[in-house]
Amino acid sequence: MSELTFALAQIDTCVGDLEGNAAKILDYCRRAAERRAAVVVFPEMTITGYPIEDLALRRTFRQAAWDRANRLAQELSSTGLGGLYVVAGTVGTDPASHGPTNRLVVLHDGVVWSGYDKHFLPNYGVFDEFRIFTAGNRSVTLEIGGRRLGFAICEDIWQDGGPVSELARRGVDVLVTINGSPYEEGKTHVRREIAANRAAEVGAPIIYVNQVGGQDDLVFDGGTFVLNADGTLVERSPQFMEDLSVVTLTENGTMRPAAVAPDLDPDEEVYTACVLGLKDYMAKNHFHGVTLGLSGGIDSALVAAMAADACGGQNVWGVSMPSMYSSDGSKDDAADLARNIGAHYDVQPIEPLFGAFQRQLDLHDVAAENLQARIRGVIVMAYSNSKGLLAVATGNKSELACGYSTIYGDAVGGYAPIKDLLKTRVWELSRWRNRAAAAGMGIGGLHIVGNEEGRPGVPLPGGVMIPVASIEKAPSAELRPGQKDSDSLPEYELLDQVLAAYIEHAHGRADLLADGFDEQTVDTVMRLVDRAEWKRRQYPLGPKVTALAFGRDRRLPVTSAFRE
Amino acid sequence: MSELTFALAQIDTCVGDLEGNAAKILDYCRRAAERRAAVVVFPEMTITGYPIEDLALRRTFRQAAWDRANRLAQELSSTGLGGLYVVAGTVGTDPASHGPTNRLVVLHDGVVWSGYDKHFLPNYGVFDEFRIFTAGNRSVTLEIGGRRLGFAICEDIWQDGGPVSELARRGVDVLVTINGSPYEEGKTHVRREIAANRAAEVGAPIIYVNQVGGQDDLVFDGGTFVLNADGTLVERSPQFMEDLSVVTLTENGTMRPAAVAPDLDPDEEVYTACVLGLKDYMAKNHFHGVTLGLSGGIDSALVAAMAADACGGQNVWGVSMPSMYSSDGSKDDAADLARNIGAHYDVQPIEPLFGAFQRQLDLHDVAAENLQARIRGVIVMAYSNSKGLLAVATGNKSELACGYSTIYGDAVGGYAPIKDLLKTRVWELSRWRNRAAAAGMGIGGLHIVGNEEGRPGVPLPGGVMIPVASIEKAPSAELRPGQKDSDSLPEYELLDQVLAAYIEHAHGRADLLADGFDEQTVDTVMRLVDRAEWKRRQYPLGPKVTALAFGRDRRLPVTSAFRE
Repeated sequence: MSELTFALAQIDTCVGDLEGNAAKILDYCRRAAERRAAVVVFPEMTITGYPIEDLALRRTFRQAAWDRANRLAQELSSTGLGGLYVVAGTVGTDPASHGPTNRLVVLHDGVVWSGYDKHFLPNYGVFDEFRIFTAGNRSVTLEIGGRRLGFAICEDIWQDGGPVSELARRGVDVLVTINGSPYEEGKTHVRREIAANRAAEVGAPIIYVNQVGGQDDLVFDGGTFVLNADGTLVERSPQFMEDLSVVTLTENGTMRPAAVAPDLDPDEEVYTACVLGLKDYMAKNHFHGVTLGLSGGIDSALVAAMAADACGGQNVWGVSMPSMYSSDGSKDDAADLARNIGAHYDVQPIEPLFGAFQRQLDLHDVAAENLQARIRGVIVMAYSNSKGLLAVATGNKSELACGYSTIYGDAVGGYAPIKDLLKTRVWELSRWRNRAAAAGMGIGGLHIVGNEEGRPGVPLPGGVMIPVASIEKAPSAELRPGQKDSDSLPEYELLDQVLAAYIEHAHGRADLLADGFDEQTVDTVMRLVDRAEWKRRQYPLGPKVTALAFGRDRRLPVTSAFRE
Repeated sequence: MSELTFALAQIDTCVGDLEGNAAKILDYCRRAAERRAAVVVFPEMTITGYPIEDLALRRTFRQAAWDRANRLAQELSSTGLGGLYVVAGTVGTDPASHGPTNRLVVLHDGVVWSGYDKHFLPNYGVFDEFRIFTAGNRSVTLEIGGRRLGFAICEDIWQDGGPVSELARRGVDVLVTINGSPYEEGKTHVRREIAANRAAEVGAPIIYVNQVGGQDDLVFDGGTFVLNADGTLVERSPQFMEDLSVVTLTENGTMRPAAVAPDLDPDEEVYTACVLGLKDYMAKNHFHGVTLGLSGGIDSALVAAMAADACGGQNVWGVSMPSMYSSDGSKDDAADLARNIGAHYDVQPIEPLFGAFQRQLDLHDVAAENLQARIRGVIVMAYSNSKGLLAVATGNKSELACGYSTIYGDAVGGYAPIKDLLKTRVWELSRWRNRAAAAGMGIGGLHIVGNEEGRPGVPLPGGVMIPVASIEKAPSAELRPGQKDSDSLPEYELLDQVLAAYIEHAHGRADLLADGFDEQTVDTVMRLVDRAEWKRRQYPLGPKVTALAFGRDRRLPVTSAFRE
């Protein structure tokens, strides 16, 4: 029996961009053929992009996707690539119910071999696939060069039974899985464990191709890999970049060792996920630059740094909007940050505007504080509208959780890069980015889609990105004299622990007390979180990087009287 | 065989308010006993409220709900009501998976008879039940007074097979269904048809008890009813109000005819749904009054009228915020409307504020138009913050669809009462409300929860509510000289037809052309709708009244390149 070579095409598709996605598939097939691959494996729903949500329910969309797949098969054939076996994903139609399916197809010899429909439809967390798809109910194999390939799609390997068990009974030489598995911290290790179990179950190597790129509130990290039947890691593609790797199934039924990309530092991984989320949101929605308010605080500094890494400092418009309560230190820190990243930097004092409103409205207390934040929101949106820039919101997860922000004020924007980062994580990532800068990683120096050459990027002046003062000073919204976040909230070190337990682990009051948190803190935090749901509903999209992000990952009613 | 009397307790619960819901159940049981009922039937998930969304996943919530049900059974018993059979809904726990279930329980003789778990879990449209619940897999009957009752929960009667088919095989004397069926136009007739089919299937009368009240973006209209096996309507409770009706199963196995509430006028039905949505959002989130911008246009006029009907004109703060482009007619219309409904009325000219911003920012075109709208948003939120009022947004469905609004401007608010009404429907309902006013229906004169005495309410001066000029003039945002909506959008009569086809019926481009719409209109409208998704994501909640509302009913990606 001869060897069989697989190309693993870890690509960044765009939802709904049938033309662009097909063109990219064609391009990667060309490159795969150059590297003498017989089979090219693409991610889940490659032709349509993923996840397509309720687009699946539109008949004309399904028809267009189907037509595009057929045309792609012909294009492959007419450019001399018809001999390749191209494994890709698209939306299918269930023959019985006529409902949409999540389908794996094989393009070969000018035709679409209409293949395998995903069996296990995830409908938890961020997933709604039971809503939109009909489940497939048969396993599928394909013989290529005397080897039997079995197929599975993403969730199919996360559940026991189903198609993989059937394939184990039938016997396969390799298990090919196509995936759209969103990034979250720590998930790469889980994926590998699960894949190792399935490789053992079928007694054959497993190929795991994952998509890469940002799509609304999800980031796909790629991290494609191949394991032998005994769980040995044979190949691993880099995270956050497009990649084409090649692996070969040898005569003895094992995969020959190939390149293994190293694990990223955990801080670098999360930082890069946020940047890719922003970068792809911009690219896919046709934004060339961003604007944001620069307060001199750590949140806006980190977001500005991410923005510079996503689109270059010259495409970032930072606006300092000092009030009478802004400290000189804050103004200096904002200016330093802007200079470090090479951003445009404007100063728009809000005092004249605040005065004009106050002459008319005479507001006090929280209403007067919110007014300052909302004047800033108006200014940021004016920059967005007049220059065609994406406004980015700078709120972190601790603020979102507690409602410690002004709706229509600091919360304005089309994307919120750090909304899933607790405040303590914001500090950690800021320190990591400065260490990376000191080590020579300049602006745009991340390993990331569209930036395949990687580090070091555009050098930073002095090798510093985020002013140390922004990291080290006590957090303050500076909306009244001497204000500190800790006047209204527990210290972030404590707060973030309670939030992680309450939100990510769904601990109730009794659980939190058993966790060792004191009663007053628990009651304060739970009350704040529960009351802020209405604000979170109107908050911009931002990348999920934890096990449980706000948004479609955590669907709680705004109106709820449940108080523990 | 003796007669068996059922009380139908159509109540308005609040999600998470275990105490309040249990107290209301107890109260209705008392009243049911006074009317000599043997069985009291409550809506779906009565104890927890409905829908509870991801609260189902919190262990301490399930425990609290279970404890409250047990305590309620004891309270019933200790107040002499232990002999009643109380059919209610709550969250249960699946014995095998330990996951949450949507459960029907019977409280009797001091104990919770842990009963029937919903089998068909709706996971389409606004529903996410497959996400949170484990499906029950057995039908359940209960003998009371020699009659066999079979049970089903809401979706169980909307699907063929399952528990109702089993009950038909086993034989029952009455099919008792508990429901949380959200309102949409025309749905009452569909419900009755489906129930008639199930009554025929089991060959017995069917009891359909539905909840009433608003919960975030859903309105439950009640409209409880009873049919005999032959489909005859025996009883119908009023819509939009709490109600306790009584029906009796006679010796011959049919229900004795009882009171049948008449169908509402279709305009009245939709108008009342919007008002109840707002009223319950306010009550359940502890708002006593609302504030909104009054432009003199029809949208803000209709919303103000609804607000007056929801909470009384004295609790409505209308703010006129004229610019240099506001016509005298508009200012007069706004003042007339406020006077008609007895609202507080303030004038806050935006010119000084606009001037202050422009001296600093010098904006032009759309950016300058948006600035005016955002200054108004800041003012409305200032009223909200300083007076503790709910800000209500006045956008209609046609605007939301086309993105014809300013985010953080006229879109600010916690609730948006007319967001699911197309512009043409806004005019129709305005005319209806004026006809009703002329016929003597004053402010708060709707049949609605908390207002059980019903019409005529507080008389309107001159019997007019909405100024005729607001209804009849050409719509304009008045953000530049002589501006008309029709400069940017097709005429609403045409636009709304295209929107209904594209949104509610998910027609693609080819379908729309086949519907007879011209190519240019179709392309314009589709492009506008597709591009506005990001604004809709940040729009306030508002009541669903059509078959397909924006929000969780229509889940489309913000980032999508699909263009037909």
